[in-house]
Amino acid sequence: MTPTGPTVSMFALLGLPEFRPGDDLAGILGDALAGVAHDGDIIAVTSKIVSKAEGRIVAAADREDAITAETVRVVAERAHADGSGTTRIVENRQGLVMAAAGVDASNAPDGHVLLLPEDPDRSARHLAEVLRDRLGIRVGVILTDTLGRPWREGQTDAAIGAAGVVVLQELAGSVDGNGRPLAVTAPAIADELAAAAELVKGKAGNRPVAVIRGLGHLVTGLDVPGARALIRPSERDMFRWGSREAYADGYAAGLAARDSQA
Amino acid sequence: MTPTGPTVSMFALLGLPEFRPGDDLAGILGDALAGVAHDGDIIAVTSKIVSKAEGRIVAAADREDAITAETVRVVAERAHADGSGTTRIVENRQGLVMAAAGVDASNAPDGHVLLLPEDPDRSARHLAEVLRDRLGIRVGVILTDTLGRPWREGQTDAAIGAAGVVVLQELAGSVDGNGRPLAVTAPAIADELAAAAELVKGKAGNRPVAVIRGLGHLVTGLDVPGARALIRPSERDMFRWGSREAYADGYAAGLAARDSQA
Repeated sequence: MTPTGPTVSMFALLGLPEFRPGDDLAGILGDALAGVAHDGDIIAVTSKIVSKAEGRIVAAADREDAITAETVRVVAERAHADGSGTTRIVENRQGLVMAAAGVDASNAPDGHVLLLPEDPDRSARHLAEVLRDRLGIRVGVILTDTLGRPWREGQTDAAIGAAGVVVLQELAGSVDGNGRPLAVTAPAIADELAAAAELVKGKAGNRPVAVIRGLGHLVTGLDVPGARALIRPSERDMFRWGSREAYADGYAAGLAARDSQA
Repeated sequence: MTPTGPTVSMFALLGLPEFRPGDDLAGILGDALAGVAHDGDIIAVTSKIVSKAEGRIVAAADREDAITAETVRVVAERAHADGSGTTRIVENRQGLVMAAAGVDASNAPDGHVLLLPEDPDRSARHLAEVLRDRLGIRVGVILTDTLGRPWREGQTDAAIGAAGVVVLQELAGSVDGNGRPLAVTAPAIADELAAAAELVKGKAGNRPVAVIRGLGHLVTGLDVPGARALIRPSERDMFRWGSREAYADGYAAGLAARDSQA
């Protein structure tokens, strides 16, 4: 029979409580993972429960105002054809480019919205520290959120926070199966872990935490870069602005140049 | 002990041969998966071996010429700072927006390049048909390739072809854990499967095929949309053009507008 490589397995934790501001998330997850987690496991935690436990719930009469408050830079916006509002793709306080700045009204009480953790890497690191200490094993932690993307329909989960796990595998200097250099390849491991975890966490059920087992070679000390390293600096981004916004800026500059020549 | 959800497991096939034009890929994979694959498994196949077996290797004195030939629309381009060439993000013949049109020089003999399968969904469907028939079980098939993305560093694997598997899970009408509607959420399942599979296939070793087990509810008949459904039509894309390209178009239009008024 065909030989196979090592098996990676993934499963979600069931029966976790609804999290509220002030909850000791690390303690609760430590309890939940005791006897379940193994050395080398990677724990994928939906960022929404981190936000809830950290009290990142704010009263907001208007979700749009909350989005504005979290926005550092509007990347692109477009009014919905049906007049139901505007999609805003922005760079938020965490440096992430995402729809609605990561402000979530669907998982918060009426009249409130849920914000992303203030510093997702710090939150991930705290979780990893507590879990490692509590369980006596080396685990990696990623915080996940759901991101849309240009050019492709639907969303995939990505890592917005990480600790104790390789986030980006720099393969420059490595070779492919033919011995040729893999110069520009750098798998965004933490995003692939987040996407994989979503397959067992899902969106509808109350399964905000998944365990990924069998990738212990990706688990590291806590002194490696977090998920912030997956954010491309906007000045190096060929899609720093929406097409319509960039066109409008160019148009205005073209007019002004013409005026100054006149 | 904390209850856990169903386990999803993934592993790569080892010892597959190097594929060459004319090889019966479906037959070889059917042999390799006999006794290995189970009903409900999803088989993730690196598109490069499909390209090789389908003879999508062309002589190309210049990789840039090959990219031009595969390009339908240049989305963005930028010269490398070190003068080593130009990065071109293009929409290719398959409708995918990707760097270098998916043309790969690193996995082809000297003086040749590897193109993507001509119709990746058709290739996936053929594989799924043959594998289902040969193995007597219902498997899903995705063809994967490595894509960069705006705003985030590194690449993740995505599904460029699919058959017999849910590619996009439309959750409109579903509710979240609080009973609120999940209106705009549509997980790009096939891309998450591709990303997950990359974690066991990797880039360096000769592991072009992975089996994902435990997600049989995502396996369907062969009459469902393929990965083409994951491509957002460019006219609906807020990032249809690179920022610099859109700015330049706008600038030219601004100048011309004044001319027409003068």
